[in-house]
Amino acid sequence: MNTAPSGPVRPTAGAVSPLRPAALARVEGGFWAERRRVNAEVSLAEGPERLEAAGNLANLRAAALPNGRDGAEPAHFAGDFQFQDSDVHKWLEAACWQLADSPDGELAAEVEAVVGLIAAAQREDGYLQTYYQLGGGEPWTELGWGHELYCAGHLIQAAVAHHRATGSDRLLRVAGRLADHLHSVFGPGRQVDTVCGHPEVETALVELYRTTSDRRHLDLARYFVDRRGHGSLSSGADRGHDRDPGPEYWQDHTPVREATEVAGHAVRQLYLLAGAADLAAETGDPGLRAAVERLWRDMAATKTYLTGAVGSRHDWEAFGDAHELPADRAYAETCAAIASIHFSWRMALLTGEARYSDLIERTLFNGFLAGAGLDGRTWLYVNPLHRRARSHERPGDQSAHRTPWFRCACCPPNVMRLLASLPHYMATTGADGLYLHQYATGVYGGDGLTVRVVTDYPWDGTVTVTVEETPAGPKSLALRVPAWCTRSTLALNGTVLDGPPESGWLRVTRAFAPGDTVRLALAMPPRLTVAGPRVDAVRGCAAIERGPLVYCLEQTDQPGGLDPDDLALDPAAPLTVDSRPHLLGGVVTVGATGRPLTPDEPGAWPYRPLGTGEPRPGAGVGLTAVPYYAWANREAGAMRVWLPLAGSGTGAADDQ
Amino acid sequence: MNTAPSGPVRPTAGAVSPLRPAALARVEGGFWAERRRVNAEVSLAEGPERLEAAGNLANLRAAALPNGRDGAEPAHFAGDFQFQDSDVHKWLEAACWQLADSPDGELAAEVEAVVGLIAAAQREDGYLQTYYQLGGGEPWTELGWGHELYCAGHLIQAAVAHHRATGSDRLLRVAGRLADHLHSVFGPGRQVDTVCGHPEVETALVELYRTTSDRRHLDLARYFVDRRGHGSLSSGADRGHDRDPGPEYWQDHTPVREATEVAGHAVRQLYLLAGAADLAAETGDPGLRAAVERLWRDMAATKTYLTGAVGSRHDWEAFGDAHELPADRAYAETCAAIASIHFSWRMALLTGEARYSDLIERTLFNGFLAGAGLDGRTWLYVNPLHRRARSHERPGDQSAHRTPWFRCACCPPNVMRLLASLPHYMATTGADGLYLHQYATGVYGGDGLTVRVVTDYPWDGTVTVTVEETPAGPKSLALRVPAWCTRSTLALNGTVLDGPPESGWLRVTRAFAPGDTVRLALAMPPRLTVAGPRVDAVRGCAAIERGPLVYCLEQTDQPGGLDPDDLALDPAAPLTVDSRPHLLGGVVTVGATGRPLTPDEPGAWPYRPLGTGEPRPGAGVGLTAVPYYAWANREAGAMRVWLPLAGSGTGAADDQ
Repeated sequence: MNTAPSGPVRPTAGAVSPLRPAALARVEGGFWAERRRVNAEVSLAEGPERLEAAGNLANLRAAALPNGRDGAEPAHFAGDFQFQDSDVHKWLEAACWQLADSPDGELAAEVEAVVGLIAAAQREDGYLQTYYQLGGGEPWTELGWGHELYCAGHLIQAAVAHHRATGSDRLLRVAGRLADHLHSVFGPGRQVDTVCGHPEVETALVELYRTTSDRRHLDLARYFVDRRGHGSLSSGADRGHDRDPGPEYWQDHTPVREATEVAGHAVRQLYLLAGAADLAAETGDPGLRAAVERLWRDMAATKTYLTGAVGSRHDWEAFGDAHELPADRAYAETCAAIASIHFSWRMALLTGEARYSDLIERTLFNGFLAGAGLDGRTWLYVNPLHRRARSHERPGDQSAHRTPWFRCACCPPNVMRLLASLPHYMATTGADGLYLHQYATGVYGGDGLTVRVVTDYPWDGTVTVTVEETPAGPKSLALRVPAWCTRSTLALNGTVLDGPPESGWLRVTRAFAPGDTVRLALAMPPRLTVAGPRVDAVRGCAAIERGPLVYCLEQTDQPGGLDPDDLALDPAAPLTVDSRPHLLGGVVTVGATGRPLTPDEPGAWPYRPLGTGEPRPGAGVGLTAVPYYAWANREAGAMRVWLPLAGSGTGAADDQ
Repeated sequence: MNTAPSGPVRPTAGAVSPLRPAALARVEGGFWAERRRVNAEVSLAEGPERLEAAGNLANLRAAALPNGRDGAEPAHFAGDFQFQDSDVHKWLEAACWQLADSPDGELAAEVEAVVGLIAAAQREDGYLQTYYQLGGGEPWTELGWGHELYCAGHLIQAAVAHHRATGSDRLLRVAGRLADHLHSVFGPGRQVDTVCGHPEVETALVELYRTTSDRRHLDLARYFVDRRGHGSLSSGADRGHDRDPGPEYWQDHTPVREATEVAGHAVRQLYLLAGAADLAAETGDPGLRAAVERLWRDMAATKTYLTGAVGSRHDWEAFGDAHELPADRAYAETCAAIASIHFSWRMALLTGEARYSDLIERTLFNGFLAGAGLDGRTWLYVNPLHRRARSHERPGDQSAHRTPWFRCACCPPNVMRLLASLPHYMATTGADGLYLHQYATGVYGGDGLTVRVVTDYPWDGTVTVTVEETPAGPKSLALRVPAWCTRSTLALNGTVLDGPPESGWLRVTRAFAPGDTVRLALAMPPRLTVAGPRVDAVRGCAAIERGPLVYCLEQTDQPGGLDPDDLALDPAAPLTVDSRPHLLGGVVTVGATGRPLTPDEPGAWPYRPLGTGEPRPGAGVGLTAVPYYAWANREAGAMRVWLPLAGSGTGAADDQ
């Protein structure tokens, strides 16, 4: 049995975290295995071609040339952004997690080739970012927009992954030299006493500390976390940016310890909080822990979409106000969903509480997964919960189509690294035993207790756990009961155990024997969900959910191509379930009843006195909802997650 | 009597328009007179200081120097945008309309000084834009973002205003030389065969034709209208812009004649349509007329806020999809409201239909006027219909505060020119007589019929019209009955006349005698308004209106500083009216009844199963609504136009 967890987060023995990622976590079948297969065989396999076509690898080769290295006659930098290197680092990290899971000689050779390029591009003094090496300007002078520490963070994470996957120190040495360079440059009284406009290096430095035991890395992470929020990044207006988003954009308006709400650029905020949570775990700092718990609650309660997505605003890719959650103009960047999962996972380890994995589940199956096309080679950057019929005709509309790659290609390799490392997020061990956070067919274990999980989750709520290896003496096996589930039962060797979940966990504690079988049954009838009264954007609407999945109506599935914007949902009609193995890679659809609205009178003023001219929807028609994660994989058309309720009487549609 | 209308739009004798701006239009008292007084005494008077402080005037002085003129050693250009000159031109236009209305020696001297600066800055060949003259690059090479024709258009409009106000040709000669330069540069087979990224010159060239009778200007306007929409502005990504908004941004995706919906940057779209409407009026082109009618209907029916504001998206300042009208994230730029008024006015003249002036009234009193602070020296660029309590704490939030001036200062001088020329939009003459489109105390007339209007509009719906001067024979006097008004009466010399409005007009036709009095009474009880079922953002809500005014709740007016986001409106409770002469410059407030929502449970997931945990609002509390145009003139706090309705049962708040 593999006893060293090979995933991205590995708290030290000194960390205060009650939970640690399970030493053994293998996903071997079912829903996520198929998505991980596509990730490995298509997305990861095609990554080097994409990085070659976009010029990222050429940048590394150019930086390795002598005139690139000393900056005298720089070669041409390819790409529009200072952070092009990070796409390479993220692909590399993803490929390493894949190798850690499933050895593959071809991929291993690709990895070593890219590692070689990176090593060759590094400057003698340890500096590494091809944008500045290839004539982009003086290093460490544009901390706001330069993304140098951001790229460094991704390089460090790739190096940690490479080390954990292969045992090699080859890339870790590059990371170590880069980190040494950072130690020489950053800090009070040093050359640079400020932070990077884009957090990321914080969590990377903590993981480098966890890997090398070099405490300087932890101290530098703490410096970056504490330095931020004091306005040291003085202006948001910089090259290529004709407006100033204000210091909140990069969380430089308030120190993390004092902040009461998540704010600014969503990915930046959440990468920062992931780093702060790592730091709280390693230092036991109670003020920092209180801050990350407070900010997570603010995010989950007031700034998270039903899909788990975050970051409402197109404008500066930002969290908006509390309860500002528009469905149509949701920005909901794929990377922000990933960042939310990173943050929540660190909170789950730090606190042992199930609610963090509740949100991870919701985000994984919905807000995150929608970003990845079923084909493994097309992507969404923006993940709205509502697309109107004609949006896709707008050439400038980012949320219209899946795209093979992006000019700003942060999302695709980020999806790759999350899917490649996904088993890491499934199970933990604590002092009392093994915790299953997510359900996927496979093998999970640690501290002597190993179990085999078989399930058809998320299509079916039955999870069968068979004990394969046992420790001496009694242990707990804890299974998370998702917050969406109101009816669950647990049976041990065929005997139902009494008692409701405690804080989200159902536990069996005993001296297990191999062959013991624990069966969890989560009832997952389709359901209608509404939002609280302060969520203005979806007032008077309901969404269809089943199990962990949020559903949506796509125009193509409706009778006669009925536009989902032209109907109201009949909340009294039953919801039905249908298994469709040949639709969208195999899904369970939900049937509902809609009532078409009368067409608008062309050219008519769209406002009217209350109580006059209430819309009268027509006779019921059968609607078909598909899982939201699978939307936009067929022909373009309207899509809605939130459906106006017929009969609400005011503004939606009346039930007469 | 002044017989030459001095306003901005003056169709020629050959135009097909059934209506022409009234030759005499003076606003002498009441609501708009006070706003125009502040405009003249504060906004216009302080304009030169602002333009000096922002560097706009210095740019003109620098361009007048020899080394500025030949470009050899350019002086430093002040300001962040290529179109800084247009702020000067717009102030100048505004000042000229003010002078046309009310002679003022000091203002006249300021005007002549600025005219002198502009004349001196013009290049020998007629070219004029200081950004390119002061080292910004080669003229006419950056049509997309350069704004050279946009600035030319504003210069031409200022010159027309100067000529109409003063009779002088001094600035008109500058405009003529600039136009000659344009004729030499633009067109098929000439140096530049494309359009400006920002429409504006089209309507200006038509007005220059109307002023000079030089048909080349009309032809060039037609060239610009017809050339657009063929993708000749090939890329939206240019200096300072790291994303490409697509050709829709500047309406280069579809020719005007073929377009079926307003799209892209709202101000650009509407300036273009104003020019197209002018062109349709002067040429009688039926295809163009059909296009502008179709596009106006699309705007009014699917893309206009209750306040008349347009342009929903912060992202690229764009019209969004049909029915995409978020209250909180409304961009609703002040300039877009002005552009909508410009467009609607030309449509009113072109068609004679009252609905265009209905929308002008709504926009003037709400979406436009909110942009101008009551003090005449602070402004809103963005005009949301909902501000949450904490938004103003965000330094990067544009919609939080009124601002003395902007880095991109397009809105303030645009407000100034509309207020200065406002009497122009009040009345028209047609073949059959005089039409009153808007109601303000003053004197209006043309073709021999002159009337004096006395009214306390918009606070009171009584409009008394006394005939002062009469022509020989019978004439019509037509008074617009706004679409919001469901109960109106017209009396002639004390006798009520029967009959409902026809197509929005109530008419008296007779041989008038001096002293004849026509009294219009428009009932204006406060009312609740709801949006159609496709306007997702305000489903389940109502807005308070009275007469032409949209109302809002500001936090400061509510009992105990109750946050408007924490209540639902009781639609069954009566609305009351209160005259408050000392509040916000004198307003009529509307009283309503709200029911406070229970506070959210901190940290709780904000979604729940339908039918569970419906919010139960508390006992009724008295609310005070103020006119929307006056919001954000006191301490910061939450504001709402659209209020959730208690008792709608789903998502808003239940009436138990």
